[in-house]
Amino acid sequence: MTVDERYLRDWSGLTRGVPQTVHQPASTDEVAALVRQARREGKHITVQGGLTGLAGGAVPADGDVVINMGRMNRIEYVDDVEGIMQVQAGATLQQVQEAAAAAGWFFPVDFAARGSCQIGGNAATNAGGTQVLRYGTLRDSVLGIEAVLADGEIVTSLTRLVKNSSGLDLRFLFIGSEGTLGIITRLTLRLQPPPGASATALAQVPDIASLSALLRHLRVTLGPQLTAYEFMSAEFLQQASELTGVASPLGPGSAWSVLIQASGGADAHANLEAALTRAYDDGLVTDCAVAASLADADKFWRLRESIPELMSTLKPTVNFDCGLPMAQMPDFVEQVQRALQQRYPQARHLFMGHLGDNNIHILTGPHPESEWFNVEEIVYSALRGRQGTISAEHGIGFLKKPFLGYTRSAGELQLLQRIKRALDPDNTLNPGRIFD
Amino acid sequence: MTVDERYLRDWSGLTRGVPQTVHQPASTDEVAALVRQARREGKHITVQGGLTGLAGGAVPADGDVVINMGRMNRIEYVDDVEGIMQVQAGATLQQVQEAAAAAGWFFPVDFAARGSCQIGGNAATNAGGTQVLRYGTLRDSVLGIEAVLADGEIVTSLTRLVKNSSGLDLRFLFIGSEGTLGIITRLTLRLQPPPGASATALAQVPDIASLSALLRHLRVTLGPQLTAYEFMSAEFLQQASELTGVASPLGPGSAWSVLIQASGGADAHANLEAALTRAYDDGLVTDCAVAASLADADKFWRLRESIPELMSTLKPTVNFDCGLPMAQMPDFVEQVQRALQQRYPQARHLFMGHLGDNNIHILTGPHPESEWFNVEEIVYSALRGRQGTISAEHGIGFLKKPFLGYTRSAGELQLLQRIKRALDPDNTLNPGRIFD
Ligand SMILES: Cc1cc2nc3c(=O)[nH]c(=O)nc-3n(C[C@H](O)[C@H](O)[C@H](O)COP(=O)(O)OP(=O)(O)OC[C@H]3O[C@@H](n4cnc5c(N)ncnc54)[C@H](O)[C@@H]3O)c2cc1C
Ligand SMILES: Cc1cc2nc3c(=O)[nH]c(=O)nc-3n(C[C@H](O)[C@H](O)[C@H](O)COP(=O)(O)OP(=O)(O)OC[C@H]3O[C@@H](n4cnc5c(N)ncnc54)[C@H](O)[C@@H]3O)c2cc1C
Repeated sequence: MTVDERYLRDWSGLTRGVPQTVHQPASTDEVAALVRQARREGKHITVQGGLTGLAGGAVPADGDVVINMGRMNRIEYVDDVEGIMQVQAGATLQQVQEAAAAAGWFFPVDFAARGSCQIGGNAATNAGGTQVLRYGTLRDSVLGIEAVLADGEIVTSLTRLVKNSSGLDLRFLFIGSEGTLGIITRLTLRLQPPPGASATALAQVPDIASLSALLRHLRVTLGPQLTAYEFMSAEFLQQASELTGVASPLGPGSAWSVLIQASGGADAHANLEAALTRAYDDGLVTDCAVAASLADADKFWRLRESIPELMSTLKPTVNFDCGLPMAQMPDFVEQVQRALQQRYPQARHLFMGHLGDNNIHILTGPHPESEWFNVEEIVYSALRGRQGTISAEHGIGFLKKPFLGYTRSAGELQLLQRIKRALDPDNTLNPGRIFD
Repeated sequence: MTVDERYLRDWSGLTRGVPQTVHQPASTDEVAALVRQARREGKHITVQGGLTGLAGGAVPADGDVVINMGRMNRIEYVDDVEGIMQVQAGATLQQVQEAAAAAGWFFPVDFAARGSCQIGGNAATNAGGTQVLRYGTLRDSVLGIEAVLADGEIVTSLTRLVKNSSGLDLRFLFIGSEGTLGIITRLTLRLQPPPGASATALAQVPDIASLSALLRHLRVTLGPQLTAYEFMSAEFLQQASELTGVASPLGPGSAWSVLIQASGGADAHANLEAALTRAYDDGLVTDCAVAASLADADKFWRLRESIPELMSTLKPTVNFDCGLPMAQMPDFVEQVQRALQQRYPQARHLFMGHLGDNNIHILTGPHPESEWFNVEEIVYSALRGRQGTISAEHGIGFLKKPFLGYTRSAGELQLLQRIKRALDPDNTLNPGRIFD
């Protein structure tokens, strides 16, 4: 059997081999049957969502049985009184967003891969996005879950309750575990009231250390109206501007800018403007533009969301989604910037991220695949001892596995392994991801 | 050795026996040493927080080794830029709230037992409280955790990051597992910006079915300003009024009232008033009082928080914290009310709860301990088939254990047991809680 090229890789670019078969089951029972069969035959299973992952987690090896969730894409119900939706795991993020909107509600997880990534893949990686400050990660939008375990058992816990204290909450075994403990087949999701009018601004800070003081100021002043705090290096902004044809409204100046969004309430625009004026007076901001129209706001976001285009100009790219305390940010960025610049002067190194969530992205390239490990070693070793994480939102998969011990303790890793062994003693499900 | 009476029971009133010893360790290492010793000697461990629990989880049996966390009550640090706090598990909820306030931040979990219950006990039960609508449960305020496992291993995962996707998130093995999987020794907590001015109202609805329509209206209209939606039966309100000496501002009428709070933003009061006026015009509300002063608001809350006094007049009380979808609420309440009234006409049956979190409390008493099981059977059997939970916030402990299968599937229970066996094969930690 020949296998379609598109099932061999995800957005990380990693390839590992050619699977034996690619199945697209249409129901939970079919998933369970496939798992039981694979286990009987001693096969390894690779679980695939939308293949937009950046850690190689959905990339199959030679001989794998691939379970691709693309056909299980039904919206099962939307409760428009309570704001709750039940879906199959293969529905795309965009499908979920649109079904929520059609019922007068709002699904708050959002990022540029929305049209292809699946809600099950989002849950498996605990995806974040641009509104985490206000709404949390995917985890915070999941009320119930159904999963197939490595022995083919189906665990159905599709509760739709905001609050439940009846024993260990099983959602969290599957959310963020990248398909290593179970295949997510259905989810109950919590919707939000539509956020209403929003205001968007681009602001420049005098130095990187000001970013945390500005964030504190905005959190305290705007409260839950603050929905996004996305920072960008000068070089990122300039490249994004060239690639998208959107001019940045900021004058040349500081190396660091932030895209800020406030939503909800008729006063969001006025509040954001007032907060930024105050920040300007206090020297936390050196230049600033508040979008005067929706079209303006879209342009600001277009700059921030130019990552797919940017990635294609840096190919092969190595990308990072580090997390660390705000107080560590300036020193970390400076150390990494210097080290990358020194070692790879011919490559470009772009910094941006969901800074309000302690999350900094680095895109660096082009780097031949043989050099990836060295690039990673530079970045991840700079994270050591900073109470950070090597993955704030994309997951560990294969690519980050060698570095997991840099930010998680030996005790944590042992406990992870213990849970894996308890649930998947034969290492059938997504073997080799996260740990060996 | 004689053991002080106060370590023999929690607020449920359950007693089981006299422990061998009560230890009050001062450090994580001491906790670990005690666990290793108990295990060597084949003893069972009972973990105790503030003993305010309502499910009997902290009540020791004959011969148990009690590990009481009361001495580990230090606030380790407060980061007032990022709004993060690290504490030992024995700090009381009130200590945490006060330390947050002193640093210009806000800890959002709150309920009447705040002065005695501990943050570790709150995490172990995933406590809720009155602000869950906006801030979530205890789980949503925990960024990192340290715990001692049943074999005495210390797992330290005191990350302080809003977002982390580097493998299974270990917080969730311990939060809500009521001390069955590990002893929580330290926590990193996420603080919130102070909510600012708030507005409080009491509203009467025409019938219980209107409660979900009113909630939808308020969620959509007020967005994140809606912080509490607490309902009370007419009988609860009347008893509360008699016991506290606070007159209810509502005229006699409907059987159901709601205490509503909106916070944050200068317009909270105006927005709440407008939303309620609209609800009145639409027939969702039949009578309504918006607190004109802080003193008024305190009075409204005093009525809602009279539960400790109410419980002492109903002693021995059986109390419930059921959760269920809003659409099921009217039918469930009617069924339970009728059944309790019929079987126990001489007792009183009060209904109230955090309705915005799908959570309804029932207080019923007096009932002799020999009758508790029958009372519970009436209420829990009415939950069957409604996609509900027998515990939305207090936990299972001993008292609800026989009924866990009423709202959790066999597959879920098997998986819970599997995790328990993997982490505590000898059943050393809090045996008999949640499951056998
Ligand atoms: C342009 C772009 C922008 C992005 N922006 C963000 C961002 O802002 N925030 C963010 O968090 N991520 C972001 N990502 C990363 C990626 O999109 C997300 O991690 C996404 O959630 C992956 O979903 P997927 O369905 O494509 O999963 P896949 O790539 O198919 O799989 C990812 C992992 O989850 C497992 N998996 C998939 N489906 C299931 C299932 N049903 N059950 C169990 N395991 C499963 C796979 O085995 C694999 O380990 C971005 C990616 C791109 C390409
Ligand atoms: C007047 C009153 C009002 C209440 N209101 C609410 C409310 O609104 N919302 C709500 O959710 N609850 C409420 N409760 C219930 C109770 O206060 C909470 O569940 C509280 O969180 C228990 O904390 P504690 O420290 O007293 O725990 P305990 O009663 O001592 O223990 C509870 C459980 O947690 C375990 N445990 C305790 N500490 C640890 C630890 N460090 N590590 C591991 N396991 C541990 C115990 O073994 C036991 O199983 C209320 C109780 C009272 C008396």
